[in-house]
Amino acid sequence: MKRQIVNVFLIISSAIAHENDRKIEFPDVSNYKTLLCDLHMHTVFSDGSVWPNIRVFEAEKDGLDFISATEHLEYQPWKKDIPHPDRNRAFEVAKSFSDGTEVIVLNGSEITRDMPPGHANAIFLKDANKLLVRDPMDAFVEAKKQGAFIFWNHPNWTNQSPDGSVPLMEMHKKLIKDELIDGIEVVNDTTFSDEAFQIALDYDLTIMGTSDIHELIDWQYRVHSGGHRPVTLVFAFEKTKESLKRALMAGRTVVWFNQKLIGKIENLIPLINSSLVIESASYIKNTSIAHVIIKNISDAPYTLRNQSNYVLHNTTDLISIPPHSYSILDVRTIEKKKKFELQFEVLNALSAPSSHPIVRIQVRPRI
Amino acid sequence: MKRQIVNVFLIISSAIAHENDRKIEFPDVSNYKTLLCDLHMHTVFSDGSVWPNIRVFEAEKDGLDFISATEHLEYQPWKKDIPHPDRNRAFEVAKSFSDGTEVIVLNGSEITRDMPPGHANAIFLKDANKLLVRDPMDAFVEAKKQGAFIFWNHPNWTNQSPDGSVPLMEMHKKLIKDELIDGIEVVNDTTFSDEAFQIALDYDLTIMGTSDIHELIDWQYRVHSGGHRPVTLVFAFEKTKESLKRALMAGRTVVWFNQKLIGKIENLIPLINSSLVIESASYIKNTSIAHVIIKNISDAPYTLRNQSNYVLHNTTDLISIPPHSYSILDVRTIEKKKKFELQFEVLNALSAPSSHPIVRIQVRPRI
Amino acid sequence: MKRQIVNVFLIISSAIAHENDRKIEFPDVSNYKTLLCDLHMHTVFSDGSVWPNIRVFEAEKDGLDFISATEHLEYQPWKKDIPHPDRNRAFEVAKSFSDGTEVIVLNGSEITRDMPPGHANAIFLKDANKLLVRDPMDAFVEAKKQGAFIFWNHPNWTNQSPDGSVPLMEMHKKLIKDELIDGIEVVNDTTFSDEAFQIALDYDLTIMGTSDIHELIDWQYRVHSGGHRPVTLVFAFEKTKESLKRALMAGRTVVWFNQKLIGKIENLIPLINSSLVIESASYIKNTSIAHVIIKNISDAPYTLRNQSNYVLHNTTDLISIPPHSYSILDVRTIEKKKKFELQFEVLNALSAPSSHPIVRIQVRPRI
Amino acid sequence: MKRQIVNVFLIISSAIAHENDRKIEFPDVSNYKTLLCDLHMHTVFSDGSVWPNIRVFEAEKDGLDFISATEHLEYQPWKKDIPHPDRNRAFEVAKSFSDGTEVIVLNGSEITRDMPPGHANAIFLKDANKLLVRDPMDAFVEAKKQGAFIFWNHPNWTNQSPDGSVPLMEMHKKLIKDELIDGIEVVNDTTFSDEAFQIALDYDLTIMGTSDIHELIDWQYRVHSGGHRPVTLVFAFEKTKESLKRALMAGRTVVWFNQKLIGKIENLIPLINSSLVIESASYIKNTSIAHVIIKNISDAPYTLRNQSNYVLHNTTDLISIPPHSYSILDVRTIEKKKKFELQFEVLNALSAPSSHPIVRIQVRPRI
Repeated sequence: MKRQIVNVFLIISSAIAHENDRKIEFPDVSNYKTLLCDLHMHTVFSDGSVWPNIRVFEAEKDGLDFISATEHLEYQPWKKDIPHPDRNRAFEVAKSFSDGTEVIVLNGSEITRDMPPGHANAIFLKDANKLLVRDPMDAFVEAKKQGAFIFWNHPNWTNQSPDGSVPLMEMHKKLIKDELIDGIEVVNDTTFSDEAFQIALDYDLTIMGTSDIHELIDWQYRVHSGGHRPVTLVFAFEKTKESLKRALMAGRTVVWFNQKLIGKIENLIPLINSSLVIESASYIKNTSIAHVIIKNISDAPYTLRNQSNYVLHNTTDLISIPPHSYSILDVRTIEKKKKFELQFEVLNALSAPSSHPIVRIQVRPRI
Repeated sequence: MKRQIVNVFLIISSAIAHENDRKIEFPDVSNYKTLLCDLHMHTVFSDGSVWPNIRVFEAEKDGLDFISATEHLEYQPWKKDIPHPDRNRAFEVAKSFSDGTEVIVLNGSEITRDMPPGHANAIFLKDANKLLVRDPMDAFVEAKKQGAFIFWNHPNWTNQSPDGSVPLMEMHKKLIKDELIDGIEVVNDTTFSDEAFQIALDYDLTIMGTSDIHELIDWQYRVHSGGHRPVTLVFAFEKTKESLKRALMAGRTVVWFNQKLIGKIENLIPLINSSLVIESASYIKNTSIAHVIIKNISDAPYTLRNQSNYVLHNTTDLISIPPHSYSILDVRTIEKKKKFELQFEVLNALSAPSSHPIVRIQVRPRI
Repeated sequence: MKRQIVNVFLIISSAIAHENDRKIEFPDVSNYKTLLCDLHMHTVFSDGSVWPNIRVFEAEKDGLDFISATEHLEYQPWKKDIPHPDRNRAFEVAKSFSDGTEVIVLNGSEITRDMPPGHANAIFLKDANKLLVRDPMDAFVEAKKQGAFIFWNHPNWTNQSPDGSVPLMEMHKKLIKDELIDGIEVVNDTTFSDEAFQIALDYDLTIMGTSDIHELIDWQYRVHSGGHRPVTLVFAFEKTKESLKRALMAGRTVVWFNQKLIGKIENLIPLINSSLVIESASYIKNTSIAHVIIKNISDAPYTLRNQSNYVLHNTTDLISIPPHSYSILDVRTIEKKKKFELQFEVLNALSAPSSHPIVRIQVRPRI
Repeated sequence: MKRQIVNVFLIISSAIAHENDRKIEFPDVSNYKTLLCDLHMHTVFSDGSVWPNIRVFEAEKDGLDFISATEHLEYQPWKKDIPHPDRNRAFEVAKSFSDGTEVIVLNGSEITRDMPPGHANAIFLKDANKLLVRDPMDAFVEAKKQGAFIFWNHPNWTNQSPDGSVPLMEMHKKLIKDELIDGIEVVNDTTFSDEAFQIALDYDLTIMGTSDIHELIDWQYRVHSGGHRPVTLVFAFEKTKESLKRALMAGRTVVWFNQKLIGKIENLIPLINSSLVIESASYIKNTSIAHVIIKNISDAPYTLRNQSNYVLHNTTDLISIPPHSYSILDVRTIEKKKKFELQFEVLNALSAPSSHPIVRIQVRPRI
């Protein structure tokens, strides 16, 4: 049997490209720009290890659109050296370094309380100082008064929940009901919470993923070995604070975490459809086997299970498409067709706990 | 939320290690040695492009245990330059180069006929010349008389079956019934056949995968970009021809093809169990989350779907364990347990068309 | 002509190994331990961008033995946020993070004045606050009173010397004569000064190289692309502050800068001799050509020019030995010898401006 | 001292690029095309291990312009299997595979005799069979009659000269005098001969370098670890056989061997000048230091020793410019100049035994 056609091989170049260009890359979707956001991080102004400029530079290197230095309002371990009376100071310093960059810095703070309610981030603040109040509920109310987008931080934090479960209490339900919590961290740093994901779906909260970085992004996420920080992809009309806030309030997010995509099905499907592109398709000479090249123009390593009506001549039903690379599928369509549909379960994406979206891709081969 | 534990990151080193050491590596299984075989290849003695020494050296570089230069008996395009009257000659030359290596060369030939029966390989021949007979059935009978193991080659070959289907005809059924065909290529070169796989299961044929190489292994399988030739893993008592033949006749094989494992469930499960090893397990301080390190001591990139009773604190249900690397799973066992079971669907393995084996792994964490 | 022997090939693995293990590695020399020091760096306590813990962690990753957070005594741009009245504070904070690590933190400060005298670092201080005096000379005297080792910082700094020359003035000569300056930065950050090197030789000052890091080591020196920060290798009897100080005062240093080694000949030669090791040597069968494997057990990429009495059969006179790798030299000794000497000009080392040391290596081949 | 300018770092990408594109690349020089030639190789038609197609495919992968399958006329170890009565056969088979490629196959043969004269290649033959004569001198005369370019093969071959020296005998001198030898292999396979180089210079012979490959280029030269086969760069007016022959007869060659360039000074200098290009040059703000980016557009890793009138602010006098990469030199010109000259000893090139060419590069910085 003579060789007929070049075969599929994993292309490792993506890891190498990371060395030179670590920018996180996802395509825009039909009607929206895909904005990259990390809205939970710390500097020396609470318990982080860097001056705010480093957070801006890290974000620039990662290609982020929006960040926020969300210092703990109530937890100031380095107060002795950095008295820090104005809780807007970290924002101001970070903002001054963002001039001339593509990174937009938002004023945000972390309400840092015992459980309940635990920790929460309020973003788009006007004056963080006003959140320094005794009663935690008052802090939420004040944040909302300032027009904040508020999300529950690491509800699965083992310091407050040793088994990693999410302790959804009456206070949380009330906050949600009163529209004082808009989102929830399904991903925080290196953790993922199935339960938080389910709560987001049940209560229609915005799905959030953040780094909550204290030291350095490069070290915590081994960026130079191909890792990446968690980010929230937000689908907005344009790259402005207003448009971002509207998209966050509307729940238009997907979390990019540890090489996986996590989000509501209505947000995942357009992102996947934009990411996977038929590069070319044509029938192999003297056969009814279609030679299809699928390109992945995103950072996500796609892991697909073939659920089409057709089996593949060159692989089993498990298909990997590395980031910014492609895979070749030789599809046995039995007879030559002008048009056919491929269907895949997208295993690297999660539309609900243990549930994976199905993507359909139309192919029109040259005959 | 402070960082508590170092997280899982893909380790890309395996691809790099390939540069230095491309040997194919799979562990032995409980009672058997795992032998690496490529029993279908060509040299200048039929329509291949190399002297037989290159086939031995390629096999040595790949760490193979057994090969066979299975020249076409009836197809000799370079007869003008290489008259080649003795059909055992390729074997003899190859064998002379294998002295002092770990590679054992078997005498085999490819019966090369129109469909039916198409092409078939006979291995463990005593005298290939005697297979040069008019009636194809007589060639099979002669091979069997010499004690050969015979398998149907590339039944999905598009030159003989343009839609890539397997034309199982009466002659094939008769050959199988008469025990003149013992195995079938489910994988040939860069192709895989679901139908051949099903026929192997239905008729209890040995599952075979071969390179059928004509030019160079390194080029055809991009070995230096992380690719590999297809091989048949054979589970035998020892590395001898006799033991190999017994194992092949008993159907104890798994095919390693394009980063996937294909075989009967009873052969796959022990191989997977030998490949995935719990390196360590202990509860994270002040939590009921078990920190489990799973090592993969094989060349196969494992792609697992979590089907345990427990969810994971650090990833979704899709788990990748790169070759000769490891993954860390933070398992939420709700309460601390002396022992628990993890259960995964093994997506990179195929136990029947579109069917994946389930592996169970016992964990005994330090508490 | 048949292949006789495997040839020399560049081994790229060192760059890859850096990814996993970036520790700077140089062997000990005959009587001394080789200590890795970076004695000039900044944190948020003057104009740096990190909390002191990051400097300790960076040093740990780089495998350093000694560091010092040498804040500007007179330049405090972030005083508004970090009033920092005690000039020993950066040291204390850094020290608290070094517990349990291999990194030893020294108390040091940067005397930060206009030219002359420009900037100077005083290390091994007891109380940095006492250096906050009007007259710069008094600061040097006070430092010396506390037992400091003092070195002139970046004498080639273009802010103070736009053509990059070293403005050696009367004040400097007096400081040197009065033993108030013990060393000089021949290397600062990404700059090297031939003139500073010559001054070090002329006035017998200790040759220093430092990072003077303000932001992040990883970024400034592209550590993940194979770069490294400048360090001073100090040859001391043991890893203690006292032994280090004695070695610094005695001038036993070599600077490791931008893949080059810079130092006095008496310090360079033992380091080179410890770094290059004959791994094996034997005559190639039926020839009088000695097959010699030279290993390089250091981080420095050796670039040698053959100046032996013998020419090489497998390369020209330019020989590269990558870090932690080896080269093979086929030496034409005309007749078989029990012993012979190789002699190389070491181009990657500098013993004076534009002057390279000669290394002699004895070979005793198996015959 | 604040960072002022991005510094020089080795760029390792060239090794990685090789993985994807191994083509050997050197620029054309002023008046000539730079043609890549490997004019000494073997196939199964004498003692090589491959069918001639593999030699064509290897050449195609390496980007060669001209090759020749120069089988041993008098040495036919596989005659039993490949009787090979027509000595033009290897050429014809190779040629048939070169159709549609960029590789041009030349008819050549290796005259294979005891010393003297040893082995010699005759290229551009019309009928190789006519060289099968008793007296070696007659073979040379016949080749010349056919218009051949003839070169002495591996004069340093240890089988014929155990100390690796070149046994220049009366017969050789007569052949040279009678213009029956036009060139000499200064490089054969993995060997280099200083003496052959000197003979080439003394007798005005064309400097040749060849692989003399018997097995596989990829293995012998570890192409996937960054190695390369030896080739002769020939500077010709156009890519035709006639133009190539004229250039070879005129001695317009440089050998690319083991990362080094070897040739006559008049051929080396234009190649180096074409390879090193000033990408940009401008004075660093507020200084008289010129920031110069030198690009290397060739495969050769340049190793330069600065011999300019100016010292460098960012490195010692040893400068590496990796293949297809660049280096940054900060040149201290003392005052700002509209134009200045850099001068380097090119250590990776050899214009005579142990002698390196000097290259001069004009810089016109923006001020």
